[in-house]
Amino acid sequence: MAELTAEKKKMVQESWGLVRSDMRSNAADFFLFFFKRHPTYQKLFNDFKDVKYEELDGNQKFRGHAVRVFFAITSLVDNLDDLDIVVDILQKTVKDHIPRGIKAKHYEDLMGSILAFLEKALGDKFTAAWKNSWETVAAVILSVVHAEIEADLTPAARENVQNSWGLVRKDMRKHAMGFFLFACVVVLFSYNGKIRSVMSK
Amino acid sequence: MAELTAEKKKMVQESWGLVRSDMRSNAADFFLFFFKRHPTYQKLFNDFKDVKYEELDGNQKFRGHAVRVFFAITSLVDNLDDLDIVVDILQKTVKDHIPRGIKAKHYEDLMGSILAFLEKALGDKFTAAWKNSWETVAAVILSVVHAEIEADLTPAARENVQNSWGLVRKDMRKHAMGFFLFACVVVLFSYNGKIRSVMSK
Repeated sequence: MAELTAEKKKMVQESWGLVRSDMRSNAADFFLFFFKRHPTYQKLFNDFKDVKYEELDGNQKFRGHAVRVFFAITSLVDNLDDLDIVVDILQKTVKDHIPRGIKAKHYEDLMGSILAFLEKALGDKFTAAWKNSWETVAAVILSVVHAEIEADLTPAARENVQNSWGLVRKDMRKHAMGFFLFACVVVLFSYNGKIRSVMSK
Repeated sequence: MAELTAEKKKMVQESWGLVRSDMRSNAADFFLFFFKRHPTYQKLFNDFKDVKYEELDGNQKFRGHAVRVFFAITSLVDNLDDLDIVVDILQKTVKDHIPRGIKAKHYEDLMGSILAFLEKALGDKFTAAWKNSWETVAAVILSVVHAEIEADLTPAARENVQNSWGLVRKDMRKHAMGFFLFACVVVLFSYNGKIRSVMSK
């Protein structure tokens, strides 16, 4: 991985400063751009998965989510000189999104789209040096994301094991119930026999 | 509730700008201040609940959380001129924190501590007008938080109902199993009788 030098950090912060100056509309524009590149991803957002693409821009939940993501990116960009904080923010983000089915591929596509969006939005201002700096930052971010997803596999694997045990247990219960019903039938037949034998006495 | 005028919004943004200029150390300082006012609250943070108070400042998880909260506040302050976004961010925050046992009282104490911290950190710069503006913003934030907590009571109540049903179901199963064992005994006795009657023939 290319080194994340102080110069590169500064260039990323400088370029993000331009996005930040109009955060709300840039955030919404980015998500429209993102969903155009990856149309199936809108379905991952319960709050606005069924909103028509053309109506997304006016949707409060969509705008809110877009702004939250852009603030999360700001918190990463602002803390590039203290990578412990960057790692902590990313770990928390990955953990929170695992139950929502968000995987490494989604983060990769998100980062790829952010670079493409910056290139599109900033035009000529987005120099080769800026692009290169963003590529390095994206690689750092994704390496933390991958590590965290792998680390989280352990409890997930444990949960899977527990779930499969749950099925086995459920099955045992079902079989026990079946056996119980069978036993009831046997008892009824036995009583029936007894009753008949009593009646015939 | 006092009106959140454009002037007040501007004063809140201006004062927060001073905090923001050194976000990381202000965020950590604030949380140390907060835990000094509310010592039991540190226990709510699984990642650093057992870290000694004197060692918190050097703890990555503590510093990370502090910065994340301060970025969340920044996202509120920055969007005061678009309250839909503020509401969306707060609703999400409240929802995410309900499973962690965070209640209205915690938000009230957090906002109270933020005002007290600003007063302490900014000294004479924190004028009566600034304080009054922050009080109005805090009241707006807390009214959204309260509404969201109440709204979330509905699914919680539903869950409670489901949980109590779960217990009833579990109980029914237990009783069914008891009845099944009883049936087995009856069957064995009946067979025993039959076997004896066959043997005695």
